[in-house]
Formats: sequence, C-alpha cells, structure tokens
Amino acid sequence: MTTKKYLESLFCPGSVAVVGATESPGKLGGIVLTNLLGVKGRLYPVNPAYREVMGLRAYASIREIPGAVDLSIIIRPAAEVPELLRQHAGKARFALIVSAGFAEVGEAALQEELVKAGRESGVRLVGPNCLGIYNPRHRLDTMFLPHACLKRPGKGNVAIVSQSGAIMICLLETIGRSGTGVSKVFNYGNAADIDAPEVYDYLAEDAETSVVVSYLESIGDGRKFIGAARRLADKKRLIVLRAGKGAGGQAAAFSHTGRLAGRYEVFHSILREYGIMEAPDYDSLMDAAKALSFQSISTGKRLCIITNGGGSGVLASDECMKHGLELVPLPEKSSCELRSVFPPFYAIKNPIDLTGQVRTDDYRVALRAVRDHYDGFVVIALTGVAGVTVGLADILKEFRAESGKPVAVHIAQGGIAPRLCGLLEKAKIPVYPSPERAVRGMAVLLGNGGQKHE
Amino acid sequence: MTTKKYLESLFCPGSVAVVGATESPGKLGGIVLTNLLGVKGRLYPVNPAYREVMGLRAYASIREIPGAVDLSIIIRPAAEVPELLRQHAGKARFALIVSAGFAEVGEAALQEELVKAGRESGVRLVGPNCLGIYNPRHRLDTMFLPHACLKRPGKGNVAIVSQSGAIMICLLETIGRSGTGVSKVFNYGNAADIDAPEVYDYLAEDAETSVVVSYLESIGDGRKFIGAARRLADKKRLIVLRAGKGAGGQAAAFSHTGRLAGRYEVFHSILREYGIMEAPDYDSLMDAAKALSFQSISTGKRLCIITNGGGSGVLASDECMKHGLELVPLPEKSSCELRSVFPPFYAIKNPIDLTGQVRTDDYRVALRAVRDHYDGFVVIALTGVAGVTVGLADILKEFRAESGKPVAVHIAQGGIAPRLCGLLEKAKIPVYPSPERAVRGMAVLLGNGGQKHE
Repeated sequence: MTTKKYLESLFCPGSVAVVGATESPGKLGGIVLTNLLGVKGRLYPVNPAYREVMGLRAYASIREIPGAVDLSIIIRPAAEVPELLRQHAGKARFALIVSAGFAEVGEAALQEELVKAGRESGVRLVGPNCLGIYNPRHRLDTMFLPHACLKRPGKGNVAIVSQSGAIMICLLETIGRSGTGVSKVFNYGNAADIDAPEVYDYLAEDAETSVVVSYLESIGDGRKFIGAARRLADKKRLIVLRAGKGAGGQAAAFSHTGRLAGRYEVFHSILREYGIMEAPDYDSLMDAAKALSFQSISTGKRLCIITNGGGSGVLASDECMKHGLELVPLPEKSSCELRSVFPPFYAIKNPIDLTGQVRTDDYRVALRAVRDHYDGFVVIALTGVAGVTVGLADILKEFRAESGKPVAVHIAQGGIAPRLCGLLEKAKIPVYPSPERAVRGMAVLLGNGGQKHE
Repeated sequence: MTTKKYLESLFCPGSVAVVGATESPGKLGGIVLTNLLGVKGRLYPVNPAYREVMGLRAYASIREIPGAVDLSIIIRPAAEVPELLRQHAGKARFALIVSAGFAEVGEAALQEELVKAGRESGVRLVGPNCLGIYNPRHRLDTMFLPHACLKRPGKGNVAIVSQSGAIMICLLETIGRSGTGVSKVFNYGNAADIDAPEVYDYLAEDAETSVVVSYLESIGDGRKFIGAARRLADKKRLIVLRAGKGAGGQAAAFSHTGRLAGRYEVFHSILREYGIMEAPDYDSLMDAAKALSFQSISTGKRLCIITNGGGSGVLASDECMKHGLELVPLPEKSSCELRSVFPPFYAIKNPIDLTGQVRTDDYRVALRAVRDHYDGFVVIALTGVAGVTVGLADILKEFRAESGKPVAVHIAQGGIAPRLCGLLEKAKIPVYPSPERAVRGMAVLLGNGGQKHE
C-alpha cells in the first residue's frame, strides 16, 4: 500500500476511539472528546468508569468496541500507556499518544517499551507527547485545546508538519487570523514511530495541499528525511524551520522531545543544495505561512520597492541581498514618465521614494509605471504622514488583480495603520511589521525564501 | 563653548522662527507651525504673504524679527533655501532645513551651495531633508506630522538619533505605545552640517537621557563617529542600527540622504571592538527601544527560560547562543524543589518546560525557585492552552518587584493574549511576539545586545 493510501486512514479515519475520555470539561480527555464530537466517522469514548460520556456509549476497553478502529487517541498517564497499547492488537491501525512523560523527561526506557508494544501489536504510533492531528475537511481535531483558547482556521491549502505543539498552535493562530485555512495539520512530538518523512510523502500526493510549513527539532534518519523533503519540494512549496541549532538549543530540544538534534550546519547545507526553503527563525516561519496562505507562488527575482520612508527603503534593500532578489533599476521609459508627474524631490530610482510628502494616489501612478518590468513588488507605507489614506488598500487590491504579480506590504503602526492593515489582509495582501519582513515574505512567494548565510 | 552648551540652544531654543509658515493646515508650513504653538520660547512665523498667521504676527523675512533667533526652521522649495539662508547671517544660530530636493535626488551642487551659505552666514545647519527635533520638555516639535497621524510620546529617558525620518517615526510609535517617553529626538537627514557625533556628545552630557537609540545610513568621518559613540557608550546605553549594508542598500541610502554608506563590515567590527551594541535589523531596534524604555539596564549573562511550549523554548535557547547568554543548569536545590511539586512530565531543566498542561501559578513556583541563581528571565506563555490566565501578569509584576531582575516575555497571539499583553506592558514588562525576540530584548537589558555574526 502506498504511504498516501496507508496514512489516509490516519488523517481521515472512519472510526476514532478516545482512550481516557471523560465528562469533565477541564480535563484533557474531556477537551479532546468535545473537539471530536463533529468528526466524520464513528466516535468511541473508552473509559471503564463510565457507561456513557457526552451522550455517547462508553467502552471499558478498546477491545469492547465493535469492529475495527482506524485511530485510537490515548490520554492516560505515561506509565499506563504501553499496557493500554497492547490491548490495541488486532483492533486499531493507529494510536495517537497525547500523554507526555516519556523520553523528553528522561524516561527513555518507558518510550522503548511503548515502541515495542506498538510493533508487537501491529499498531503504528503518533507521538507520544503531542497534540496530534487537525483536518478540518474531516472535522478531525485531536488537540487538547479548547476552542475558547485557540480558534481553528477553516479549510485551505496549507499543511503544517510540526514536531512542536507550541509552534503548531502559533502557526494555526497566524493562518487563522489571516482568514485563510489549512489542509492537514500534524504534530508528532517525540516521533517514536511516525516521523516527518512519512507525512511529507503523504502530503506530496495530497490534492488538498499545495504548501507545507514544517517545524523540526530532530530529523531522525537524515537520508530518509532529505529524500522525502526533496520529493515533497518537487511537487509542493515546502518551507522548513529547524530548531536546536546549537548546544543550548540542542539540549532544550532533547528535553522537549527526547531526540538528539544533530549537527545543524550539515542539515542547513543539504537543504540549500536541494533548494528546500529554510526559515531562519520563528518570525520568518510565521511570515512565510502568511504569505503562502494569501497569495499563490510565483517566480523571478526582479523586485521593485515603493516607499514613502527613505530609511525603510534602505532596510528593505539590505534585506533583498540576503535572498538573491535584484533591485533592477527602473527602465528609462518609466523613469521619464514618473519624473514628469512627480515632484522633483521624489527619488525615481529603485526603491522609488515618494517621501513624507506622498499622496496616496502616487502609489497607483508608480505601480502602473513599473508593472511590467518586475516580478514582485514590496510596498512600504508609513502612516505617520498626512498623505497616506486607507484608499491605498483599493489601489493595491486593483494592482494585484491587474498585474497578477505578488505584492507584500510593510506598514508601521500608528494612525490609520490598523484599519489599513485590516483592509489589505482582507484583500489577501500580506502586511508585515518591518521592511525586512515584507521582503522576506516576497522572497518566499518568489521561491527565494531560503536566507543566505552572511 | 562645550558641545553640550552650544547645542542646548538647538534643543531648547529661546526663540524659534518658521520660514514658510502658512495658515493652510494641509501644508507642511501649516502643520509645523501648529505643532510649535506651545513651544517654550518666542515663536515667529516668517512669510511675506501674511501679516498674521494663526494669531501670531508674521514677518516678511527673518531679518525683520526683533532680536536674535536661536532656531530657524525653513520649509521652502529647495532652490530658494540658499538665498533664504544668507538672510540668516547675524540673526540665527541654527537653521533646520525641512525641505527635500538636495543631494538625495542628485542635486549635489545645490546642497554644496547650501553648506557654503551656512558657513558664510555663521549658521549651523540641521538637514536638509529632515523632520528635525522633538523635545517634549521644551514642547519643541518641528515634525511636519499632524498629531492625528502620529501620537507623540511624553517625557522619558530615551533619546533617538535617526538619520531617517521614517525610522524615527516608527521608534516614536513604538515608544509611545509603550506608554513611556523620550528625552531628545533628532532626525538629521542629509547631514550637510550637524551629524550624529556632535549630537552624541551633547546627549552624553544630557541629564535627561540615559538611553540612546540610533539609526544611521552614513557615518561621515569614521574616526569622529567612533570617538563620539565610545564617549557616549561609556556613560549611557547606546544601540545602533546601521543600514545600507550592501550594494543595494548603499545605493538606496545614497538616494535617501545623498551620502555614501561606506563599507559595512569595517563599521561592524569597530562597533564590536568598542562594545557598542548593534541592532541587526528594524525589529531588533524597535525591540531594544521597548526593552530600554521599560526596564532599567542590568548586567550578567546567566539566563533562565520558563516556558509552556517546548518548541518555543528550543528557539529561545538557539537565540541565547547568538548573544553570549548562558543557559546555566538549574541548581540541584531548585531542581529537587520543583520536582517535588510539579508533575513528572514537566521538564525541570533550563528551559523549564511547564508543558501544555501548565497552570498559571506554576510560573510563580518556578520563578521563585530559581530567582537567586540567574541574572535575567525569559518567560514564554502560549495562551492557546486552557491553563494560562491573565493572572500571569500579576505574578510577573510581583516577581519583577521582588527580584529587581529583568524579565522579558514572549506571548503568542490568540485567546487571552491581547489582554495579557496589555496588563504586562502596563506593568513595564516588555512582551515580544516571538521567542527569539524576547531573548534579544533581554540581551539588550543585560548589555549583550550586539548580535554575533554566525
């Protein structure tokens, strides 16, 4: 069976058991069951203390459930899990172990016992120490996070593969606030069995996914990882943040998921060699997720910056270098055209500097004049000056539609900034809080997101 | 006369003229005059078209003003400025030239003429192409930005020296939103005469300033710059962002202020040699401004991270390395204490990982147990999980007061995040939107803000 077919019953299970389900809304077993009530497929609470939980018949053990279970979610103290897992033999395909308290806190022997129990029972494992899966199309949500704390994004084309639950939550927040959505979301914690490569192979074939954002601390079998990452990057846009880069981070990664992080430098150069995009830090990963969930990917490296703040334009220019983006000079025709209509103190170069005396419509004029000569546009609007109005949102929206080219925006806080940002993001134009980050967002859209080492 | 004494009449002038003042509220001359109406000292509109502007007697030229003028602000088309300046001979000490259209757009000859006119008239120049000065204690505000667009911060201890008006606006916004304030703010654009070093020397002696945040594109005379920066950094905390780092950025810097940026690498290594803190980018400069305006500076490099998200802790750990901060292990006594009260799946290491099952009070318990062993604390709270409440703000506020040590916080968006961030910042605890940035904020507070090259 292909990975695609095989993992389909993990991401879209026909039947789900919750071992450790409770009525208590404050407990993990209560939160998870609540979040699963709408799942497409049968749902079986398992808890010997109940005959019924949240209106569903409860089972004393996994064995009592009639028929096969595709996915069993286990939320019980770590020490109980291996024995519970053995009861899954011949009953369940996948066990997703939410419980923490294994290798990440030094209980390596307990984790080994878990892996052995899984292997002997013929059950594939997700976790332990994880939030698991969110698949909005199947209404599968194994995360022990109440909706009041974490608003779920809807259906979209971005997949998340994150070893860390924390970073997955942050990515979900970022994508959710964008008003866009996700295809498949996977957090796998200690990766005792199923690891990123297997999921990468699944997503490479998943029609609902066109972008994969991935956070890793360990890579397990390096060859396997790189193979799967390459196959995925050939078909979809893949961006990876690898944490645990140095001694301090590696020690922290070990306490987090109980796996060794390995030498970062080697990993970094392999990713570069195979053209897999790497996010250098948290902000870059979030920024990439936003860009990719808003706009479709494009190609090229000729960038035009249009700003009303000289310093912001300089910082954006500095950032271009790091991503191999080229600030090609304006064509003579465009320069002449703009010189004839703009005041003499505007800088008609690249960046085009409309200065603090800008009027909103100047952005329209400048963008039209250079539209055909560039692959992407970074627009910077400082709202501290009188001439910038919320009308800029319509100008950029129209320009996006007309040109079909990617646009990323930097708007500094203040004045009309919140309203303008809201309008732009509603129009699916990503807005960033610094000039450099707008350039990075653009770099991701143009496929040049992997930051060069300085 | 010392620089201190001499520049005092620039930053706290007894008399101010506005050449180009108008009644029209949309024009620069109208905005500037409006913003200056409350200035401590005499205020003289200069415009031959008026006999009165905004209730003040207007003068046809600077020469007609009775007595000497400390500061004359010139807001007229570039071509007129040299001649206007000549009329200042024997009349004004300083001329602040707001007008753009000089070297930054290729009009180098016009700028030379300007410099010559200043020298011959015995008038020192600020600008051209600048917003000038904001000194809230003197109610001096030469910026052509309406209050509706840019809310001014009040009095505080942070000075800003920025070649770019745009970046100055962003810094003012950042500091203003912090609810803290500024001492002296200076934007000098093309730096045709008065440059950063002179102002650094002034601020070194300024009793109201304890922190200086500076953005530069050109450094003019390198020796002079470094000398002044060292003198300033000896007495106050100085953090510098140098833009125009590579070819693209240098070209943009040249179109912005008409000055060559010079080789960045040389500048960078000199700053390091003399222990002057450098912000690598816009976010870092804003983050440093926030940290320094909130908390007093401290020393040491022993850091403890307390998190409820493992991945966030790993990213924070990675960032520590870059700043020479040490994640010293927990003392045995603290580990035993915490192990006896916390569940077995919490990671009692550094970072302390309270996991997704955290309860707010766990932060208090953890902080108390490690308080005496570290120089600073980075607290990470992901609000996507049920256990984190706004009570965390009181816990951190109390801990700050008890320990007297710096605390920086990362809170990811979502759930109660906005309310919690608001409460923390009200308590002068800086909150950052990423784990790495919280560490950078802490590094600045501990004097290790200069990011190492990797």
